[in-house]
Amino acid sequence: MGAMRESPEFQRIRSLVQAVNAPLAREVALGPGDDAAILSLSGSEFMVVSTDLSVEGVHFRREWLSWEAIGFRAVAAALSDLAAMAARPVGVLVSLAVPPELDARTLDEMAGGMGACLREQEAALLGGDLSRSPGPAMIDVTVVGAADNPVERAGAVPGDDLWVTGRLGGAALAARAWSGGLEPDPAVRRAFECPRPRTREARGLCAAVDVHAMIDLSDGLAADAAHMAAASGVRMVLEAERVPLHAALESWAQAEVALAVATGGGEDYELLAAVAPGMEVGAVRKLAGELGVELTRIGTVEAGSGVEWVGARGEVLEAPASGFDHFAGEETV
Amino acid sequence: MGAMRESPEFQRIRSLVQAVNAPLAREVALGPGDDAAILSLSGSEFMVVSTDLSVEGVHFRREWLSWEAIGFRAVAAALSDLAAMAARPVGVLVSLAVPPELDARTLDEMAGGMGACLREQEAALLGGDLSRSPGPAMIDVTVVGAADNPVERAGAVPGDDLWVTGRLGGAALAARAWSGGLEPDPAVRRAFECPRPRTREARGLCAAVDVHAMIDLSDGLAADAAHMAAASGVRMVLEAERVPLHAALESWAQAEVALAVATGGGEDYELLAAVAPGMEVGAVRKLAGELGVELTRIGTVEAGSGVEWVGARGEVLEAPASGFDHFAGEETV
Repeated sequence: MGAMRESPEFQRIRSLVQAVNAPLAREVALGPGDDAAILSLSGSEFMVVSTDLSVEGVHFRREWLSWEAIGFRAVAAALSDLAAMAARPVGVLVSLAVPPELDARTLDEMAGGMGACLREQEAALLGGDLSRSPGPAMIDVTVVGAADNPVERAGAVPGDDLWVTGRLGGAALAARAWSGGLEPDPAVRRAFECPRPRTREARGLCAAVDVHAMIDLSDGLAADAAHMAAASGVRMVLEAERVPLHAALESWAQAEVALAVATGGGEDYELLAAVAPGMEVGAVRKLAGELGVELTRIGTVEAGSGVEWVGARGEVLEAPASGFDHFAGEETV
Repeated sequence: MGAMRESPEFQRIRSLVQAVNAPLAREVALGPGDDAAILSLSGSEFMVVSTDLSVEGVHFRREWLSWEAIGFRAVAAALSDLAAMAARPVGVLVSLAVPPELDARTLDEMAGGMGACLREQEAALLGGDLSRSPGPAMIDVTVVGAADNPVERAGAVPGDDLWVTGRLGGAALAARAWSGGLEPDPAVRRAFECPRPRTREARGLCAAVDVHAMIDLSDGLAADAAHMAAASGVRMVLEAERVPLHAALESWAQAEVALAVATGGGEDYELLAAVAPGMEVGAVRKLAGELGVELTRIGTVEAGSGVEWVGARGEVLEAPASGFDHFAGEETV
C-alpha cells in the first residue's frame, strides 16, 4: 500500500553517505544508491583496483584511536595502494560490519574520518555495504583509480637507485607505546592516526624522473623491499644508515632497535621506488621541495635476488626485524 | 641476507589465488599480486562497480552450508549486482576475515566455491585481502564489470510492464527450514546454496527488448519493487497471483504465506525489469526459451509512488511481508 517505509538500514546508509560526502569525480556517471556505480574513464587510461581490509583487534583497537581516526586510516591505507601504482584516485567502495554496541553517532564519526580522507585525496564514495557484526568491527575499502602509465613492483633493474619518501617508524612507534601501556607523544600518535597516502607525490615523482618500479611500505621496508626484489627478479642492497628515521627514533641509543622499528612497521604508508640512476643531490633536493616530501636514496638494485643490508663501509649486516604477519597470530596494534 | 622467507600469509594467499584460478578476462592487464590490479577497457564502455558483504551469523551459518557453498554464494550475490546493471563481469576482489579455527583445507574449500562461480560467470580474481578474524568469518566481494549501456533502477515509466526472471522463494524457504531445525529438500537447498546471477539473461533481455529499469531481488520482490519505484518516481502495481513461486511453494494451502515467503526473501537473486509494453505472449515465450529462463509479467508501472498489490479481479490487497533488514536484528539465515 502506498510508499514503503524506508528501512532502518537504508536510512542509516543514507546518513553515512551524507557524512562521507566527498564531491564526485568527473568520471563518476552514477554514484552510490543503485545496484552498482557507473564510471566513465577516458579511453587511453588504465583502471587500477585494489582492496584493503581493517579488522578490529588485528589492525586497530578502539581503545587506542577515535572512530574518526579509525575511518580515516582505513581509507588512507587503501588509497596508498593507488599511490604505489602512480594512479590518481577516482573513488572507493566501503563495506562495514558493525557490532551492535556502536551507535549511530559513532558510525557518523567513522564516516566523518573517511570523508576527511576522501576529500583530501579527491576520491568519491562509489558504493558500499553495511551489515551488523556479531563480533569485531570490520572495514573493507576497495579503491578505484586511473593511470596513463601505472607503475608495478616488477621493473626494477640492476643499477637503479632505491628511493624512499618521508620518514619511517612513526606509526610502529605509536603501536609499540600503546602495546606497552603508554601514550605515544603527539607527533608519533599523529603518524599512526593520519597517514597520508603519497598519491600526489607518487605522480609528481613519476612525472619528473624515470621510475621503474614502486611499492607502498604497508608491510614495512624490510618486507616490501623483498616483495619488489621478488617481483622484479633483482637483489636490493639497502644501506642501513641511510634509512630516514622518524624524528622520535633518531635519538635512540640502540640504533639497531630504532632501525628494526622503522623497517619492520609498515603503517606509515610511505613509498619505495626504483629509479633510473644519475640524479644529482641538488636535483633530488629541488624535486623533494616541489613535491613537499623528503626523498632519500637508501640503496641500489643489483643482479641477484633478495634483500641485503649493508653498513656505512659496505659491510654486510644482519637483517632487521621483518614485517607484520597477520596470520602469525601477532598483534602489532 | 639473501631472499626473505615467504610469510605464511603470503603463502596462504598464493594457495587461495591458485584454488580460485579463473582465467583472466582480456581486460586484465595485471592480475593479483601487485599493489593493485590493472584493467584496460574499451573506450566506449562504462565501468560498473559494486560491493557485497557476507558476515557469518548474519548472512550465512556454517552449520547450514559447506564452506564451498559459502564461497560460491558470496561471489554469486556480488555478481548479481552486475547482472542488474546489464553489465558483463570483468573480475572481483575478495577480502576475507578468517577465524583461527578455520584450517587451510577449509579455506581452500571456500576458494573452490568462489572459483566455481567465477568460472561459470567468466570473471577473474583481480585481488583481495586476507586477515584473521577474532570473531566471525566475513567475506567482502567487490565486483567490476563493463557495459555499453548500463541499466539503472531509475527509468521505469508509466505504461511499462514489470517482468521477473525465474521463480521466487526457494532460498527463503531453505532458510525457513533451517531456522525451524529442519533439513530443506534438495531443490530448495540448491536454490539457497547455488544462486545463479542472471548475467547472461540480463544482457540477452536488454538486447532483445527495451528495458527501462532493472534491479536484482537481493532484498526480495516487495522491497526491491519499492526501491525501483522510489528511484524511478513511479508506482508499481504488482499482481499477487502472477508472482512465479518456487515449485516447493506452489502447493501451499495458505497462498498468502507462500506469497510472503516468495516476495520477502531476496536470496534467489532473480531480476525485476521494467520493459516497454507491447510484447505478445508468444514473443515473450520465445525469448524466454532463447535465454533459458522463465520470464513472467507480474505487473505494470503507473504514475504515482510506492508499491500496490492487486488481486485477480484488480482488488487492492494487503502488502505481503517486507524484505530482510540486517539492522533490525533479525536473522533470516
